Amino acid sequence: MSRIAKTLRKPPYYAVIFSSQRTEGDQGYQNMAEKMVELATQQKGFLGIESTNDDELGITISYWDSLEAIQSWKEHSAHQIAQRKGKSEWYKQFALTVCKVERDNFFEM
Amino acid sequence: MSRIAKTLRKPPYYAVIFSSQRTEGDQGYQNMAEKMVELATQQKGFLGIESTNDDELGITISYWDSLEAIQSWKEHSAHQIAQRKGKSEWYKQFALTVCKVERDNFFEM
Repeated sequence: MSRIAKTLRKPPYYAVIFSSQRTEGDQGYQNMAEKMVELATQQKGFLGIESTNDDELGITISYWDSLEAIQSWKEHSAHQIAQRKGKSEWYKQFALTVCKVERDNFFEM
Repeated sequence: MSRIAKTLRKPPYYAVIFSSQRTEGDQGYQNMAEKMVELATQQKGFLGIESTNDDELGITISYWDSLEAIQSWKEHSAHQIAQRKGKSEWYKQFALTVCKVERDNFFEM
């Protein structure tokens, strides 16, 4: 199965890059992370998500049809709770980068 | 050490998201991947890179100061050789997404 996001949308659309380094231990992280992915996919304007990590660095990219959709997801009450837990418990550091997708290409060999 | 890219640049700048699923075996991939990262960092307009992967999915994001810098790197002769090997040997599928970064935030807890 492909884990590469396919947005089925022509640019322009938007991407949110979330790069993070975790603290030690789980502290409810995996369970919440799965719930947040499930919830994100149900939001208006959600186009796709791809996520991978090694022992140190995680990168999750979610794709959205507008900046308004990104803002609504940021303000979602369950997501707000996760964001607070992220800052207080799960992450040592993280970066959030909001981008406008100008072009995309998918290759299958 | 932080593996999250710090571009030290205010938006707008550009991001190239490379998401890939590999074929089985190494076939010279790791060695070439390290060389390509080293070479990319030496290019004009290069701002930063972050990369992570699990057994199935790899995500590498490189940051650049202009679309011209991205185009020059795409056309670099050694990079062209790597791109051909990527299509013929290393990747089952990949996506390349070029984005304009509109805002970025880094958090250290």
